[in-house]
Amino acid sequence: MNKKAVAIVGLGYWGPNLARNFDDLAELRWLCDASPDALERFGARYAQARTTTDLDEVLADPELDAVVVATPAVTHYELAKRALEAGKHVLVEKPPAMNAAEAEDLVATSESSGRVLMPGFLLLYHPAVQKVKELVASGELGEVFCVYSNRQNLGKIRTDENALWSLGIHDLSVVLHLLDEEPSEAWAHGNAFLTPGIEDVVFCYLRFPSGKIAHMHLSWLDPHKMRRITVVGREKMVVFDDMELDRKITVYDKAPEQPSDSYGEWRTRTGDIFSPKVPNDEPLKLECQHFVRLVQEGWDGREMHDGLEVVRALGLLTESLRG
Amino acid sequence: MNKKAVAIVGLGYWGPNLARNFDDLAELRWLCDASPDALERFGARYAQARTTTDLDEVLADPELDAVVVATPAVTHYELAKRALEAGKHVLVEKPPAMNAAEAEDLVATSESSGRVLMPGFLLLYHPAVQKVKELVASGELGEVFCVYSNRQNLGKIRTDENALWSLGIHDLSVVLHLLDEEPSEAWAHGNAFLTPGIEDVVFCYLRFPSGKIAHMHLSWLDPHKMRRITVVGREKMVVFDDMELDRKITVYDKAPEQPSDSYGEWRTRTGDIFSPKVPNDEPLKLECQHFVRLVQEGWDGREMHDGLEVVRALGLLTESLRG
Amino acid sequence: MNKKAVAIVGLGYWGPNLARNFDDLAELRWLCDASPDALERFGARYAQARTTTDLDEVLADPELDAVVVATPAVTHYELAKRALEAGKHVLVEKPPAMNAAEAEDLVATSESSGRVLMPGFLLLYHPAVQKVKELVASGELGEVFCVYSNRQNLGKIRTDENALWSLGIHDLSVVLHLLDEEPSEAWAHGNAFLTPGIEDVVFCYLRFPSGKIAHMHLSWLDPHKMRRITVVGREKMVVFDDMELDRKITVYDKAPEQPSDSYGEWRTRTGDIFSPKVPNDEPLKLECQHFVRLVQEGWDGREMHDGLEVVRALGLLTESLRG
Amino acid sequence: MNKKAVAIVGLGYWGPNLARNFDDLAELRWLCDASPDALERFGARYAQARTTTDLDEVLADPELDAVVVATPAVTHYELAKRALEAGKHVLVEKPPAMNAAEAEDLVATSESSGRVLMPGFLLLYHPAVQKVKELVASGELGEVFCVYSNRQNLGKIRTDENALWSLGIHDLSVVLHLLDEEPSEAWAHGNAFLTPGIEDVVFCYLRFPSGKIAHMHLSWLDPHKMRRITVVGREKMVVFDDMELDRKITVYDKAPEQPSDSYGEWRTRTGDIFSPKVPNDEPLKLECQHFVRLVQEGWDGREMHDGLEVVRALGLLTESLRG
Repeated sequence: MNKKAVAIVGLGYWGPNLARNFDDLAELRWLCDASPDALERFGARYAQARTTTDLDEVLADPELDAVVVATPAVTHYELAKRALEAGKHVLVEKPPAMNAAEAEDLVATSESSGRVLMPGFLLLYHPAVQKVKELVASGELGEVFCVYSNRQNLGKIRTDENALWSLGIHDLSVVLHLLDEEPSEAWAHGNAFLTPGIEDVVFCYLRFPSGKIAHMHLSWLDPHKMRRITVVGREKMVVFDDMELDRKITVYDKAPEQPSDSYGEWRTRTGDIFSPKVPNDEPLKLECQHFVRLVQEGWDGREMHDGLEVVRALGLLTESLRG
Repeated sequence: MNKKAVAIVGLGYWGPNLARNFDDLAELRWLCDASPDALERFGARYAQARTTTDLDEVLADPELDAVVVATPAVTHYELAKRALEAGKHVLVEKPPAMNAAEAEDLVATSESSGRVLMPGFLLLYHPAVQKVKELVASGELGEVFCVYSNRQNLGKIRTDENALWSLGIHDLSVVLHLLDEEPSEAWAHGNAFLTPGIEDVVFCYLRFPSGKIAHMHLSWLDPHKMRRITVVGREKMVVFDDMELDRKITVYDKAPEQPSDSYGEWRTRTGDIFSPKVPNDEPLKLECQHFVRLVQEGWDGREMHDGLEVVRALGLLTESLRG
Repeated sequence: MNKKAVAIVGLGYWGPNLARNFDDLAELRWLCDASPDALERFGARYAQARTTTDLDEVLADPELDAVVVATPAVTHYELAKRALEAGKHVLVEKPPAMNAAEAEDLVATSESSGRVLMPGFLLLYHPAVQKVKELVASGELGEVFCVYSNRQNLGKIRTDENALWSLGIHDLSVVLHLLDEEPSEAWAHGNAFLTPGIEDVVFCYLRFPSGKIAHMHLSWLDPHKMRRITVVGREKMVVFDDMELDRKITVYDKAPEQPSDSYGEWRTRTGDIFSPKVPNDEPLKLECQHFVRLVQEGWDGREMHDGLEVVRALGLLTESLRG
Repeated sequence: MNKKAVAIVGLGYWGPNLARNFDDLAELRWLCDASPDALERFGARYAQARTTTDLDEVLADPELDAVVVATPAVTHYELAKRALEAGKHVLVEKPPAMNAAEAEDLVATSESSGRVLMPGFLLLYHPAVQKVKELVASGELGEVFCVYSNRQNLGKIRTDENALWSLGIHDLSVVLHLLDEEPSEAWAHGNAFLTPGIEDVVFCYLRFPSGKIAHMHLSWLDPHKMRRITVVGREKMVVFDDMELDRKITVYDKAPEQPSDSYGEWRTRTGDIFSPKVPNDEPLKLECQHFVRLVQEGWDGREMHDGLEVVRALGLLTESLRG
């Protein structure tokens, strides 16, 4: 199969990582950025790629198959839409849009154009998340009661987007992927301590029609360094801890029990603890491979609809936070 | 100074621990319980104590100084009130009352009777909590931004009170003690998975007039065993981790920084990590000693007013949880 | 089956634990100690037991089946021998003797008397040690290369026996049990820092005819609290960590590999990590049950011969240490 | 001050790291390696450096100040000696020589030539090791009883040098640096499981004239990943744990105590636990800076004599290991 021709739009913080991966997986045909310096630097590294500051020049190239949008978040919607309308497949960095209306418009544009629209929710391609999803889907955990994430650190303090948009979007994409439901309630609480209007600490609570619940504890003002997602099932519990080297996933065979002879008294059962080997593959590489596969082999729209659900939930949480 | 004469009312799960301590610190004069079996068992152990199933007999004893109420939670208010009205000092197990109206009535009764009313918020007497309070009060942490607790486990599953009342009341008493403010907002979210109406998992968010925030993550359906309170200050951060043997308290010299030359860019500072030695004294013994001291040396009502604040906040959270 | 009649000889530090267990498992017929105070105290607790300071009185009792020796270590040999000669079965605390000659004499006495002689190597009855033994014996670990133990702490500082005899005897019994070989070389190195002649820190190295090796790091002057035994097999590695609550045993599917295409270059394989549930049964109870079973159901002498091997190896290590 | 002109001899695994650092700190004047491919690759990266496969050409350059030897270990002695004889200062990778005779000859050559000879014991330049040295030297720990290291992992399995030479040399350099004594006894025990003659697991014990002791546990066949050095002092204990991110150093205020009223009974004291901030500077950069400083500012021979002591102790341990 011929390699697909790809353009990288945006060469700031994250774009270069995408360029590096697509240089392996596809034909890196265009590099586009507003900064001539960035174009010169990456143009030297990827000599076969053309460089331009003009997106129209990129989109006018009939040989180009796909556009990867890695520009600042507020421009994602517009650039992704233009690329779709030009008949290009699109991988757009998270968030794909700033609100549900924009996201719905992108979905409609993708559908009418017949082109792939895949949002870059990196964590969904993490082998450990895929393992957790398998465990949930297989029924091994029993009915899932609760999913919660802890993304805390004394880390990069942003002044342009709050902890919900900067940190929580990762967890939100995983929560919705694992539960495969849209929330019926969404609450967010938090406070901006350092920069007015930019919440440093945010707590989110979601409730789903099935009765499942989810929670996210998000903070860049914290003494603990945590990147953890916990799934509490009726029969087993699973933890994905991204700070661990060798135990990314741990399955606890622990559960409440109501013995028939205990007259309504609950007891607990504690059994084996198991950390299956999780492959070390780079999530970004797996994400890029997935996009190439969708472009080459066809697509049912799932990633795009999932992305829409994330944007919708993010909108509900933002409303609640502003509340 | 003569030993004060104390009655223990309620010899179920917790009462015997109180009896053991007051047998050391005071004259254990009465044991009162509805169960003749319990009276017989503990009467044998504390031969000098009189036993009865009739509280009136206890309260009628003119030699009795104080009553310790360790009965089921729903009876605390009524029994504490009767004891105060009989002119006895009262140590009442948590919660001292089931709602703010009852708690306010207890406070009024205590004031009119001139007798001590001390609620048994055990964690306030933990040497580690007292150390955290010192650190907060001394200003060493800088302005406090956020206090949050994690009380999670696959632990005792209750069918009579939910995780907020069973687990959260401990943390709530500490949060209010540390911040010395009453919340202006109180949100609680959670779900009952095992027993209808009894939430197994509860998340609470509090906001204070000063802008400080607090959060509690409470669950008895959890793979992690956590009993932890984290205080995030502007200059330092402190963790009280009750699962640690030798590092109950850890002070992190970590903070956000905004260097004058960074044009609004925030950086972070990470310095020493310090775990001061915390005495191993049993919190319950310290609590009982404190009560005896209040009875003997006089009292300004602080513990009672603090208890009222805890009951009020618990009421707000319960309302929010019920939605 | 009738309960066997047992005498506890020695009611110092450890004897009372044995008394408590044999009170459940057998008829506690005699308590014997040089201290009238101890006899009075425990005589009150176990009212059905006779008390005496005279061992001959105990041994003369024709109804007595077995003697449990829990006196100071230097007396174990003599008392166990007297009991065997009197026709009693014997459970003798570790070390059963102070040197190989004594131990061999005990074995001979046991054989000629036809009575059980079981040394109280407590750790052999720990469910986790039995699980490790199963893993070794089943071949799941592949060929065992190395077993090593870490028994370190700032703990009880003895002035009567060194770290090898006080701490190392536990590990040594496990090492020999797991490997089922007697060492061909035994080296011990260490130093006495606090009490002349009493080594606080000891390192032991054993080499076995099969090429396997073992090591013990023993210290009561250490900042780490470790009670850990590690077994390195050709295919898997196992750790028994007695400081863990829920992961007493962890099996690592980790091994060196020499792929056929790597021209002699070694690689490593890292797979699943597994902590099987280990029962919480008290090792001492299991030890006492085992002794009762041997007395009731007959015996092939294995425990006695294993004990002889431990004493022999301890003798070799002591010689090396004295150097 | 003018930049010193430096030659890097050996561009295999480690040499490129040295080249990168000296390119910052000095004039990188020569790159010398037997492989034309390596010369071409690094010659392109450091365009100002001359390349050659002929060491004589390097040593003949009168403008060259110093030579950095990063070739295979068995060649270190000869190349360092030739460079010193040519009047160049020398930084030689560890081990500087394969035995004490060679090392003594290097020292003599350095002294007669008046040129710096610095062995590259990387760990000595780790800020955490320097902090531990400070703590020892200041007397804060009290008399040092014991230093021991754990360097264990399922890691790179070598077939050319054993765990003592590959792993232990790091710890040995630190132990001797901390204690500032030469050992009076040196024992090593271990076994070669995978490659004949190449011990995979080695235990080393050293005893010093002052009575201090040291131990090293070295293995590349181990389930634990440990890089840890523990110092047990009479008053405090210190741990350097290189697997920790934020607690490289921990000082435990823990000690044995013999109260005057305890009749010879030892107790233990447990106080604060403290992890001072340790700078994140790269040890190799600090090592290279140190060498440049010695060349520029003069030198008393300490590093060379320390290196000789490490080689001597390594020789004693190797003899003991060979039995």
